[in-house]
Amino acid sequence: MNSQTIVFPDPPFISAWAAVVGKKEGEGPLGRWFDAVCPDDTLGCSSWEKAETTFQQQAVELALKKAELEKPDLEISFAGDLLNQCVGSGFAARNSTVPFAGLYGACSTMALSTVMAAVFVASGFRQNALASTSSHFSSAERQFRFPLSYGGQRTPTSQWTVTGAGALVVARQGKVKIKSATVGRIVDYGVRDINNMGAAMAPAAADTIMNFLADTKTAPSDYDLILTGDLGYIGSELLIEMLQKEGIDISKPHNDCGRMIFNREKQDVHAGGSGCGCSAAVLCGYILPLMAKGELKNVLFCATGALMSPTTDQQGESIPAVAHLIHLSAE
Amino acid sequence: MNSQTIVFPDPPFISAWAAVVGKKEGEGPLGRWFDAVCPDDTLGCSSWEKAETTFQQQAVELALKKAELEKPDLEISFAGDLLNQCVGSGFAARNSTVPFAGLYGACSTMALSTVMAAVFVASGFRQNALASTSSHFSSAERQFRFPLSYGGQRTPTSQWTVTGAGALVVARQGKVKIKSATVGRIVDYGVRDINNMGAAMAPAAADTIMNFLADTKTAPSDYDLILTGDLGYIGSELLIEMLQKEGIDISKPHNDCGRMIFNREKQDVHAGGSGCGCSAAVLCGYILPLMAKGELKNVLFCATGALMSPTTDQQGESIPAVAHLIHLSAE
Repeated sequence: MNSQTIVFPDPPFISAWAAVVGKKEGEGPLGRWFDAVCPDDTLGCSSWEKAETTFQQQAVELALKKAELEKPDLEISFAGDLLNQCVGSGFAARNSTVPFAGLYGACSTMALSTVMAAVFVASGFRQNALASTSSHFSSAERQFRFPLSYGGQRTPTSQWTVTGAGALVVARQGKVKIKSATVGRIVDYGVRDINNMGAAMAPAAADTIMNFLADTKTAPSDYDLILTGDLGYIGSELLIEMLQKEGIDISKPHNDCGRMIFNREKQDVHAGGSGCGCSAAVLCGYILPLMAKGELKNVLFCATGALMSPTTDQQGESIPAVAHLIHLSAE
Repeated sequence: MNSQTIVFPDPPFISAWAAVVGKKEGEGPLGRWFDAVCPDDTLGCSSWEKAETTFQQQAVELALKKAELEKPDLEISFAGDLLNQCVGSGFAARNSTVPFAGLYGACSTMALSTVMAAVFVASGFRQNALASTSSHFSSAERQFRFPLSYGGQRTPTSQWTVTGAGALVVARQGKVKIKSATVGRIVDYGVRDINNMGAAMAPAAADTIMNFLADTKTAPSDYDLILTGDLGYIGSELLIEMLQKEGIDISKPHNDCGRMIFNREKQDVHAGGSGCGCSAAVLCGYILPLMAKGELKNVLFCATGALMSPTTDQQGESIPAVAHLIHLSAE
């Protein structure tokens, strides 16, 4: 087995970023950090799917503006989301003239798209690249679970899909370096509970983090923050436990986007936040600004995705998961 | 606008390939070329989704075997398909231990996955990479159109989703060179007929082919074959017409995977074949073997994808499309 991690000899940078979220996310602990908080989750659109598309478009526009990049100068765009056929992203890119590579990594998409953007820029084949993703509570609920009007009870292990989007620009210069990237392997521990995504995804996060640390011969203490997204409360505990069994203690530097974005006591989100937009908004709204300020120096961003569909769930299949990782540095 | 095409200074190669198809595809004009023709489209599985997954697994296994590559030595895998949440590919990769990057490009996936594999190998960041995709007539019909048992009439413009899968290995050495790659832009001409994919996708193919020719300063006559997949009969005519209006005549070297895989008169497929598996099976079953034999020297493979979902269709949206291209050379 070769090294799973790509260490960039000439690392690319994240030059700009933006996060746009919904009302509930704006009321959470990170509310003041986001570029925009929309008081109406429909954004005036006639469907939740169109609203999700608009969230992603807004995050992309803002990130490009901050990068002082006009669309004709943007060389490639990587995006995906949770919706069937990734229509949140495909439709968001419909009116741009930017080459578009669609991805599917479920909630791991912000890491996957950033890995792709980093490789295209680090290789010198492209001068810049965009990575973006989105999710929407209402479009996700009706697609993966129940119609909202059904008023189904949520189980204690269920997570709340974030309404929001994040986008970032990778370029040859910038404030935050992408030192290395790890594309994850699919891990399936046989979890079948579609309302317990944290448990399904924790083994994938453990696998990727463990392999990254081995590949780079580093320890958890080398990082200010090991940020998973979005295992929530239950998945985070499982991850720490699983790595402890392997002799790796990440309990100190670890946090999880699904734990950070909502206030557990006041916002009734059960096991935490989730959705592609969760880790995207936390990374692009909170972590990258902190790194640019020098308040965080070395961060591992490991976004996790559960790769089932409602059909495979109904067919009794277990949930395969994947976790992709980037090592960010502001040193 | 910078060049949309990546010309590899040190081109990677396709070292091995395989195509596995269903019964109807085996009875078509290319039947004898495929590595395996399965007489039963369920492959003994309890669902069409599981059958599709198994088709893709078989194509991957065969391609790796021909590349004399053991799974632990395969460094990364790129795959996607038409099913919601790309479960055909995610579940096919579930039992492997290969880093997995999920893609969504609808029927353009064979080109998109090959572009990604080529960039990862050409950059030197990976030594080898796998590209694969699949589709299944029955899983696609029930997801995108009607339950099969409903017995709905197909319109004359509709295409027949291919049951099958293709896989190829990109490496530092091999028989067929990937000289360059173009990631396409999303093009939407306002087509709203979900039963006329060819018309929706033809403008995307025209855009990508036109930009590739401009980027590389080449003409259609420089290529033995300009192969689109899968515009079918209607989309192919539109493509040729659209490019003619731009002063580009591809009528001689052009063919389309959706026209090649079935016998129009005898197999009742209306406007031709479609689905990720269509261009994958034609490329990996027929074109690459012909190139390895030296019977084709210079081929443009431009796979097209329609990025709508049944939900966006029901919401009255038009169909955005994309086309990705690779330039293959056996010289």
